[in-house]
Amino acid sequence: MNETHDPGLLSWVESANDGETDFPIQNLPFGVFARSGRPPAVGVAIGDMILDVTECGRAGFLANSPALKSCAGSSLNPLMELDGKFLSEFRSELSTLLRADTVEGERASARSDRILVQSNDVSLQLPAKIGDYTDFYASVNHATNVGRMFRPDSPLLPNYKHVPIGYHGRASSIVASGAAVRRPWGQVKSGAADEPTFVPSGMLDYEAELGFYVRKGNPLGNPVTIDDAAGCIFGFCLVNDWSARDIQAWEYQPLGPFLAKNFATTVSPWIVTSEAAEPYRVPALRRPDSDPQPLDYLRSAADQERGGLSAVLEVYLSSERMRSEGMSPAQLSRASFEGMYWTVSQMLAHHASNGCNLRAGDLLASGTVSGETADSLGCLLELTRRGAAPLSLASGEERKFLLDGDEVIMRGFLEAPGRPRIGF
Amino acid sequence: MNETHDPGLLSWVESANDGETDFPIQNLPFGVFARSGRPPAVGVAIGDMILDVTECGRAGFLANSPALKSCAGSSLNPLMELDGKFLSEFRSELSTLLRADTVEGERASARSDRILVQSNDVSLQLPAKIGDYTDFYASVNHATNVGRMFRPDSPLLPNYKHVPIGYHGRASSIVASGAAVRRPWGQVKSGAADEPTFVPSGMLDYEAELGFYVRKGNPLGNPVTIDDAAGCIFGFCLVNDWSARDIQAWEYQPLGPFLAKNFATTVSPWIVTSEAAEPYRVPALRRPDSDPQPLDYLRSAADQERGGLSAVLEVYLSSERMRSEGMSPAQLSRASFEGMYWTVSQMLAHHASNGCNLRAGDLLASGTVSGETADSLGCLLELTRRGAAPLSLASGEERKFLLDGDEVIMRGFLEAPGRPRIGF
Repeated sequence: MNETHDPGLLSWVESANDGETDFPIQNLPFGVFARSGRPPAVGVAIGDMILDVTECGRAGFLANSPALKSCAGSSLNPLMELDGKFLSEFRSELSTLLRADTVEGERASARSDRILVQSNDVSLQLPAKIGDYTDFYASVNHATNVGRMFRPDSPLLPNYKHVPIGYHGRASSIVASGAAVRRPWGQVKSGAADEPTFVPSGMLDYEAELGFYVRKGNPLGNPVTIDDAAGCIFGFCLVNDWSARDIQAWEYQPLGPFLAKNFATTVSPWIVTSEAAEPYRVPALRRPDSDPQPLDYLRSAADQERGGLSAVLEVYLSSERMRSEGMSPAQLSRASFEGMYWTVSQMLAHHASNGCNLRAGDLLASGTVSGETADSLGCLLELTRRGAAPLSLASGEERKFLLDGDEVIMRGFLEAPGRPRIGF
Repeated sequence: MNETHDPGLLSWVESANDGETDFPIQNLPFGVFARSGRPPAVGVAIGDMILDVTECGRAGFLANSPALKSCAGSSLNPLMELDGKFLSEFRSELSTLLRADTVEGERASARSDRILVQSNDVSLQLPAKIGDYTDFYASVNHATNVGRMFRPDSPLLPNYKHVPIGYHGRASSIVASGAAVRRPWGQVKSGAADEPTFVPSGMLDYEAELGFYVRKGNPLGNPVTIDDAAGCIFGFCLVNDWSARDIQAWEYQPLGPFLAKNFATTVSPWIVTSEAAEPYRVPALRRPDSDPQPLDYLRSAADQERGGLSAVLEVYLSSERMRSEGMSPAQLSRASFEGMYWTVSQMLAHHASNGCNLRAGDLLASGTVSGETADSLGCLLELTRRGAAPLSLASGEERKFLLDGDEVIMRGFLEAPGRPRIGF
């Protein structure tokens, strides 16, 4: 922990101090934003404003930081590739610049018209060039619930408690929050039909996940140890792994999901850095004594003690009718990341355990985060038991799966006793 | 077809005319090479030489071609992104430049010391920045042989003859021919063991595949029709999808292969353009009448008539002992691409059928190319029936799977009556 984590810090950006914002001064997430008619630029979210890092540099701020010139482009990859020491120093300088009680903050507040923009006035972009995207399956509740639909007697496959199961997703179709997603067409075959048909998916679903970006990768052929894994993570985001369940059911054997998933994946635009997340680390899930212990390459005392993350993911749905009637989005679920069977370090170390090279900007995601209770299930497949138990919305509508015009809203935050909540 | 296909053309580069080379003037594949101490550059293979495209430009050749400046970098992506018309014109200019019977060729041959380099004097690089890599499973023989090992009674899954099965591979670990591949460690579990162990793979295998690069992609949400698919392909290469069979067997359910494959994928460095391959197109596989016809989005008369490719893939093995005793590599297999169940256009159209966006430089691969006979099986898993029937090599050695020090050599070429063979 360092001074940037001090729960008492306040910013001269007043909306950062209201106790409600996702972006108090203890957060300082990085992202890429675009003003109308100007090229995308690196920014830091603070309250309901964005600090324009490039403009800070032009105005003479942050000038001592080697990281400043890594922020000159339109993606965070150069910043991700920086030595961790410079990244930490940069975050400290940003904190000083935005604090209400520093000389630097006083100078900066006098130039706020130049270095700050309203979040509402810009469009938020994909924050990184993502070389490869990998999706895991780390919620044992999710794996059990989904498995039960296909194999009632043995919901979990024999490898689940030994292997952090994952697969490669599609990098090209990752978009930032807010981008419209088109319902995919695909081959589907109902059990009763003799032949498949090519139709719009009738079982469009979301999956609420936590994502994490690689900071420092590994050369091809060189694994990453479980103790080094945490240091390879730049930061965290939310991921919606849109899924077409009918396409998935027909295509997925034997090589896994493909067109059922790769038509779009949405990420939240702000990346909460590993350093900002540090005070919200918690012990890894304690496995029942009857479960196997992780193999040595996935086990370390440090990861057991601090490998978990006290994150909460919430999902809301807003239908066209709800919006036209001025209704608030309906909350569908709220799940804690603390129940995940594998830690993010275990996922990353497993990924690189065969020598597979990870690169700065690569995105890994946890898989659907589902808890044990009915109100903590992170996708409609589980919430409606594959449509068998439709959800009733306050608007009088029902949902088995998503309908055209539905908006899925994911919110997530990190929380810890005595600390401000920081969000995504 | 155009004049660059004329079987009678000869080059002033004499090694291109010997009837043996993979690179006669009818081929003109693009690649990226690096001389010692100089940055990688775009080249064209001709006989045992490489035409240095950048040096051609500096020497005043190819100056009318808008494509020339797309060759200034160290990858083929800018060339891939060009309008197809310019690409075709460029190939025509390159042909004219290298012909023995043109004024342009005469001028070029006088400058050969500047614009040509010996292939043996350079290192060949990965030719493109590959955004996403997708691997298909398009050989019905391979799918049947592999399926039989797991499900003797129903080797082919019900979706196989309807869906061009594919999955996402790893882009970061794709390397060019010649790069050493390290045997991966991973979790394996024998049927007899109670628990998995983390060990070096004992079942390292290769897979001989045909790859194809995307030229012109599609925006997210916009499918590609089967008739437009061929025009989206820049060209072809060989792919070795290295596979660790013991890791694969334990990890692959339910989300498909992951660490069993992503430790390395090797591609041949030269890309045979779609235009060069045009005279070697043949009808698609005629399906038995008892098989289902492809759904409409995968079916067109043009693809049925010209969607196949008369390609042959050969695999050779050279052990350390064979090399130390001066023995030639042993041929393990020879398979024809004409037996593939799905055409390359069907694979590409299927991939984009849900709106998944393909980008210039993306790599798609066919999956293991296996024929019906014992000498046409494209991986050791099939050739040795998962180790049950070891291969005997002329050196007196046996192979169930690859041993340290083994070199796998893949050769491939396109052939058609009355035409020169062109290779990869």
